[in-house]
Amino acid sequence: MDHLSSTFAALSDPTRRAILARLVSGQCSVTQLAEPFDMSLPAISKHLRVLERAGLIARGREAQWRPCRLRPAPLKDVSEWLDRYRAIWEQRFDRLENYLQDLKAKEQRHGRQKRRKQ
Amino acid sequence: MDHLSSTFAALSDPTRRAILARLVSGQCSVTQLAEPFDMSLPAISKHLRVLERAGLIARGREAQWRPCRLRPAPLKDVSEWLDRYRAIWEQRFDRLENYLQDLKAKEQRHGRQKRRKQ
Repeated sequence: MDHLSSTFAALSDPTRRAILARLVSGQCSVTQLAEPFDMSLPAISKHLRVLERAGLIARGREAQWRPCRLRPAPLKDVSEWLDRYRAIWEQRFDRLENYLQDLKAKEQRHGRQKRRKQ
Repeated sequence: MDHLSSTFAALSDPTRRAILARLVSGQCSVTQLAEPFDMSLPAISKHLRVLERAGLIARGREAQWRPCRLRPAPLKDVSEWLDRYRAIWEQRFDRLENYLQDLKAKEQRHGRQKRRKQ
């Protein structure tokens, strides 16, 4: 599996995304990571292995509790991959905004015409 | 499957990402999309269904050739999800850059001292 595919596959699970979000505030033990989830330690460890293989987390070797920490480099790659699409969604949202402003302007003109006729 | 998970799952395949990249330049028929790949039309159609379910493409109903077009909204959601991590990788790259600049400065000082001694 190529690098970007394994990153996307690792991110396609809400528990794994929640684990990454938890690691934003600093490194954690597996027990600490498991706390908010209604999940067994082996189930959490399985998710951690997927994240580790994708390079999204690293696990300490020094301490017995083997703290997990976030590795943001694959997320930067996802952001770079997204770059070519950014222009497209920005254009579309610009067009939608222009359309809504036109609509608003037409409604205001229509409102003034109605008041004049009354 | 939640919305973001199905987007990431759809993006976890290089053929599906290549299909999206092709659609950046405009809508295409399934036959046109299949051309660059060594794949049967049914195999391509299967990938298109995954992309369609994730809301990443839409298929026309009007013409018989049912053109595919890109829908960028789920990619915008991925970009917004990434936002909280952006600060982390930027910080890390800043730290790396500072470290390299320090290293360069030290080497230059070291070089000047060596020249003075000669």
